[in-house]
Amino acid sequence: VKHTAGTVYLVGAGPGDPELITVRGANLLREADVVVHDRLVSAELLSLAPLAEHIDVGKSRARHAYSQGEINDLLIDRAGRGACVVRLKGGDPFVFGRGGEEAAACKQAGVACVVVPGVTSAVAGPGAAGIPVTHRGLSRSLAIVTASIDASLGQPRLDYDALSRMDTIVIMMGRAGLAEVAAKLISAGRDPETLAACIENATTPDQRTVSGTLATIARLVDSAGMNPPIVTIIGPTVALAD
Amino acid sequence: VKHTAGTVYLVGAGPGDPELITVRGANLLREADVVVHDRLVSAELLSLAPLAEHIDVGKSRARHAYSQGEINDLLIDRAGRGACVVRLKGGDPFVFGRGGEEAAACKQAGVACVVVPGVTSAVAGPGAAGIPVTHRGLSRSLAIVTASIDASLGQPRLDYDALSRMDTIVIMMGRAGLAEVAAKLISAGRDPETLAACIENATTPDQRTVSGTLATIARLVDSAGMNPPIVTIIGPTVALAD
Repeated sequence: VKHTAGTVYLVGAGPGDPELITVRGANLLREADVVVHDRLVSAELLSLAPLAEHIDVGKSRARHAYSQGEINDLLIDRAGRGACVVRLKGGDPFVFGRGGEEAAACKQAGVACVVVPGVTSAVAGPGAAGIPVTHRGLSRSLAIVTASIDASLGQPRLDYDALSRMDTIVIMMGRAGLAEVAAKLISAGRDPETLAACIENATTPDQRTVSGTLATIARLVDSAGMNPPIVTIIGPTVALAD
Repeated sequence: VKHTAGTVYLVGAGPGDPELITVRGANLLREADVVVHDRLVSAELLSLAPLAEHIDVGKSRARHAYSQGEINDLLIDRAGRGACVVRLKGGDPFVFGRGGEEAAACKQAGVACVVVPGVTSAVAGPGAAGIPVTHRGLSRSLAIVTASIDASLGQPRLDYDALSRMDTIVIMMGRAGLAEVAAKLISAGRDPETLAACIENATTPDQRTVSGTLATIARLVDSAGMNPPIVTIIGPTVALAD
């Protein structure tokens, strides 16, 4: 890769394992002047850019370090000064990663912005527990939604009736909202005995999985004391888990 | 990476651009004794394993080089002889890639099998045309299905009513079945004026995009003479295209 100065690269870091970033993403990190990253991005990835300016804009639930507007301004400011800016985001920038908003902000400011996709944890999270999101004879439709509570601001309403009828349902970032989403899927008619699994810290040495049903999964996640990042999968392919 | 002899690695090659394979996938290719690959995998990726045995099991529509059973047998045979086998698949092995079937066949035969996820073209295809699959205020649910005609064998029926109500709908491998899927979504109640785009050869130098509506997209794809691999996205985020 030859990077262009004064450009923002929105790079997907992948699901957790630092070797699951793309070759292009890793190469851009090595050339970066500035790395603007989320809280959950691994230290191994940041070490690819030891001389770059590192800015952690990650949001924990306790403190909101940077607002989305502040992140946009930061990207535009650094690129405007001619820097090669890597905006490193967990998973893929466009799968509930707000990459579209950052790309639009750059475009509006006249700053070049290039999106480098990543492996999404919506697929790789279940996969790391041996669960395929689709499988011949079991699932030919996959729905991906977020149960993140603040995501409801200004969002279209989620159609639980339609969602409940998709073969495989993946819920991202759903620690706090999981019980509510599961209850609504059951109310909408999904069989409460549908298999479900929740994977914490997928693809890392700290990975843990709990398995149950749509009716029990939220309680099991609570009992296990699971914390973000987690991804939940509901549907018949859960039967194929390791 | 240190590979284990006698193991099958199901590796996602990503959406097309050879730099969009993962670092782990590229490293495994460099260590492979045997590479079993699909037709659409790039020559650049295969060149990472110049001394390995290369077996093209890709299926064109004209000839079915290997059946799925024959592919499974091949993987098990080579791994059984102690080889490090990389099974290189376009996109991600678990997103309509039949990776689950190959993993199950290995498991049944007592052969170690490790899945290395990839960037799925369901997300990166639209992304390469500037179209995010989700976007705050526009789309909070993403459905991914395949319109591949032979995929209907032994598959659960697709619930078009539910599918039509998801904010974003991505249709993979849908060249031949696109007109039928679009018509069924309209019959199920989706607004025929919903924006739609189809991306051919996404993330490669040959990438082409056509944009229209749910009512017009299949005809536009025909007129443009588009050929697989293509991915189609339907929904309001298409308005954000480059």
